[in-house]
Amino acid sequence: MNLEQAKKQFNEILEKNKAYNHSISLIYWDGATGAPKKAVNNRAQILGILASEVFKLTVSEEMKQCLEVLEKHNDELDSITSAVVIEMRKEHDKLTKIPADEYREYAELLGKSSAVWEEAKNKSDFSIFEPYLEKIISMLRKFVEYRGYDEHPYNTLLDDYEPGMTTEKLDKFFGVLKERIVPLVKKIQNSDKKIRTDFLTDSYNTKKQEEFSQHILEKICFNKDAGMLKESEHPFTIEFTRDDVRITTHFYEKNFTSAIYSTIHEGGHALYEQNIGEDIAQTILGTGASMGIHESQSRMYENVFGRNINFWKSFYPKLCETFPSQLSNVSLNEFHEAINKSENSLIRIEADELTYSLHIMVRYEIEKMLIEGKIEVKDLPGIWNEKIEEYLGITPPNDKVGVLQDVHWSDGLFGYFPSYALGNAYAAQFEHTMRKSLDIDKLLLEGQFDKVLEWLRENIHKHGSMKKPNEILKKVTDEELNPVYFIKYLEKKYEKLYNV
Amino acid sequence: MNLEQAKKQFNEILEKNKAYNHSISLIYWDGATGAPKKAVNNRAQILGILASEVFKLTVSEEMKQCLEVLEKHNDELDSITSAVVIEMRKEHDKLTKIPADEYREYAELLGKSSAVWEEAKNKSDFSIFEPYLEKIISMLRKFVEYRGYDEHPYNTLLDDYEPGMTTEKLDKFFGVLKERIVPLVKKIQNSDKKIRTDFLTDSYNTKKQEEFSQHILEKICFNKDAGMLKESEHPFTIEFTRDDVRITTHFYEKNFTSAIYSTIHEGGHALYEQNIGEDIAQTILGTGASMGIHESQSRMYENVFGRNINFWKSFYPKLCETFPSQLSNVSLNEFHEAINKSENSLIRIEADELTYSLHIMVRYEIEKMLIEGKIEVKDLPGIWNEKIEEYLGITPPNDKVGVLQDVHWSDGLFGYFPSYALGNAYAAQFEHTMRKSLDIDKLLLEGQFDKVLEWLRENIHKHGSMKKPNEILKKVTDEELNPVYFIKYLEKKYEKLYNV
Repeated sequence: MNLEQAKKQFNEILEKNKAYNHSISLIYWDGATGAPKKAVNNRAQILGILASEVFKLTVSEEMKQCLEVLEKHNDELDSITSAVVIEMRKEHDKLTKIPADEYREYAELLGKSSAVWEEAKNKSDFSIFEPYLEKIISMLRKFVEYRGYDEHPYNTLLDDYEPGMTTEKLDKFFGVLKERIVPLVKKIQNSDKKIRTDFLTDSYNTKKQEEFSQHILEKICFNKDAGMLKESEHPFTIEFTRDDVRITTHFYEKNFTSAIYSTIHEGGHALYEQNIGEDIAQTILGTGASMGIHESQSRMYENVFGRNINFWKSFYPKLCETFPSQLSNVSLNEFHEAINKSENSLIRIEADELTYSLHIMVRYEIEKMLIEGKIEVKDLPGIWNEKIEEYLGITPPNDKVGVLQDVHWSDGLFGYFPSYALGNAYAAQFEHTMRKSLDIDKLLLEGQFDKVLEWLRENIHKHGSMKKPNEILKKVTDEELNPVYFIKYLEKKYEKLYNV
Repeated sequence: MNLEQAKKQFNEILEKNKAYNHSISLIYWDGATGAPKKAVNNRAQILGILASEVFKLTVSEEMKQCLEVLEKHNDELDSITSAVVIEMRKEHDKLTKIPADEYREYAELLGKSSAVWEEAKNKSDFSIFEPYLEKIISMLRKFVEYRGYDEHPYNTLLDDYEPGMTTEKLDKFFGVLKERIVPLVKKIQNSDKKIRTDFLTDSYNTKKQEEFSQHILEKICFNKDAGMLKESEHPFTIEFTRDDVRITTHFYEKNFTSAIYSTIHEGGHALYEQNIGEDIAQTILGTGASMGIHESQSRMYENVFGRNINFWKSFYPKLCETFPSQLSNVSLNEFHEAINKSENSLIRIEADELTYSLHIMVRYEIEKMLIEGKIEVKDLPGIWNEKIEEYLGITPPNDKVGVLQDVHWSDGLFGYFPSYALGNAYAAQFEHTMRKSLDIDKLLLEGQFDKVLEWLRENIHKHGSMKKPNEILKKVTDEELNPVYFIKYLEKKYEKLYNV
């Protein structure tokens, strides 16, 4: 096979993979946003066939040959093709090392385990989920052995979501966070500052909530010709190309800020995808650099911008206009304090900015030990509760609000949780740099979201995954990951809010 | 390859085809019901890749070998597998006879021609569409030559939509219709009966229209766990399996009966698909027997049931409750007359039951001559207008409301139009038989739609395409296609309505 032939065949394989992955995403979107109830059985079968085709193409002999020829002629490739080849080599090697029948067995296991986890959670009975989780972990550990690892087996899993991340870096990162955040949390617990939140649980018409969510999306420059907002049980973002990026939120009548913050959070993810460079948009590089960098964008919008007083100076009048009876006696300041209130709580997805990282730390430490084989699945509920007690000073009364609260493990997502904490830290580090050239507060106050978006697009978005997370971080902030920016951001904010 | 191997491989190919076709349908559904505007480009590419995979699998050497082995062992196959083999053999031969590069060229041509047709229609300028239509017809004529034909080249195209249908049968069928309907239309034109329609063009809230459409669907036994109603520009039905059958309607504020009748019409299609037998539901036989039989079900619900006075005796109170101000001074009888009013009009999709077949006749005669090569594309506007004048006594003032009105030809759908007329005739013939065992009027009056559905399911729906259209007709009505039932149905109805 000569270079031209290899290029042609390589492209054909990638185009097919793209078509199947597009179909998989659309089936997922459709299922989450309103497919008929009985469609579920057929859907699972179709998804299985499509995923298996993607697998087969990725590990195929043709793919292997294409990669070899392309790698041999690397000098003659343009930079985009070269990066695509590196990406596909990684994926090819990863999947080739795992025996196909074990991979299929694992896919089938995951196909069942979400429903089992859901039942276990609903019944608050860890023993129902235990055998599935044991099997998932034992298979993952085997896969890590097949795939090989540097230093620590967990590194191989981390790399799937955050290329280049290691336990060494994370231990240091979480160490610093722990050292500084835990005392701050304690100080706030002992503060006698009273924050009013009564109005947060009033009834808010969901139709009007939707209008307000749409209003925010428009203002933050979400392109509605290249995306849409719908409702689903759990909010998520799904991207087909930068021309079609869809997000969901969930409207609760008695918790209206939930939909607002889900919309802004997913909106941040969507802006990333919509602003990927046109040169790479149609390639496999046309997506976020990593889960952590992605999360930095959603957290930037949700927290750095969306919980800033200046953001609400601009949006609050419209919010009051939308819900006059509920908010007429709530001042801007009271509203701003309420949406920033910190409280030690049991549920990660309801946690505030300050305590959020502590929830991630618990999961990180547990996952690392599980993958090392240092702890056993049956001991998880006890270990979980001890750690929550240690970091947050509260003990889960049952497993539903404890070890069973997250869906991730039933989906085989080990190594994924740290991205959430990294996202927060990346966001603060980016913000620090951004402030050197942009007056963020003034722009938020004036609703000039096109200006902040432009900065993010030029520095982060447009590169898609052409650059690795650490490359982006160093190029933009002139530094490696440094948790101090996030800590300072939190200290400044919460010390002011709680007068501590 | 032995029989077991052939069965296994055959199933694998069919499963893949199913997954790709499922994806194609979902992309189409998504596009028609709300995908972001800019998604369109990417969508076309993905659809092309998926369709090409289906093509390749269908004409593949593996498929050929499987078919040969399965056919050789036909005695050992169960009846369903045997029917599936016959279906796939037909499809395989059809696609194999057409050179792949010409097929691709044709697909690309169709990919462009709809937009060209739309532009031509909007500008009412046939010359814009002319070169595309010429190319479509010249390619279709070549394909017919490749595929071969019995008696008349148009028969090969007819057979794609209505297996077993021929020009000989249709000439006879339309001959009888013309002979009896044209005089009836003339009589009605000269009748001095006044039918009130002023209220049809009042304003009707579209949200309430939707509620009423949902109400009708529920009553006629559409299973909402296995389907849904949404809005799209042009109403359609799309089926994934019998567990997921989706329909659309379109709500016009100033034309509320449009949405109602689209809902009932598509509902009729959907009931057919939802009631296919479980034994064949997962196979390629798990869909309607033909376009004509499908249309008989939609027309049965839309016209035979949905324009019957007893149907409205049951539904009209609810309709008045939904739109009290618009309908308070409209009697049930006035409403019933209005929705059955006959008028010679230019647009097929707005035509009433009586004149509808005349619109189809015009298209049938023109298509037949085009495929024979007896007329030229450039002469179409003139020929169209002459025929409309001949059958309906009116002349289109321009091509937009004349030869350019339908999308079908730009999609390559030649041989499809007759299904619409056949559907009406089949429906009347089925109704005639149904009345021997069911008191339809009483059931409609009492809203006992489960009873009529049961009859349709047992006689028609459950067979899917295990039986050919003519087999179904003969088995159910003990007769071949006989247009007299439809004519008598129309005569009885319209002579009474217009006192002629």
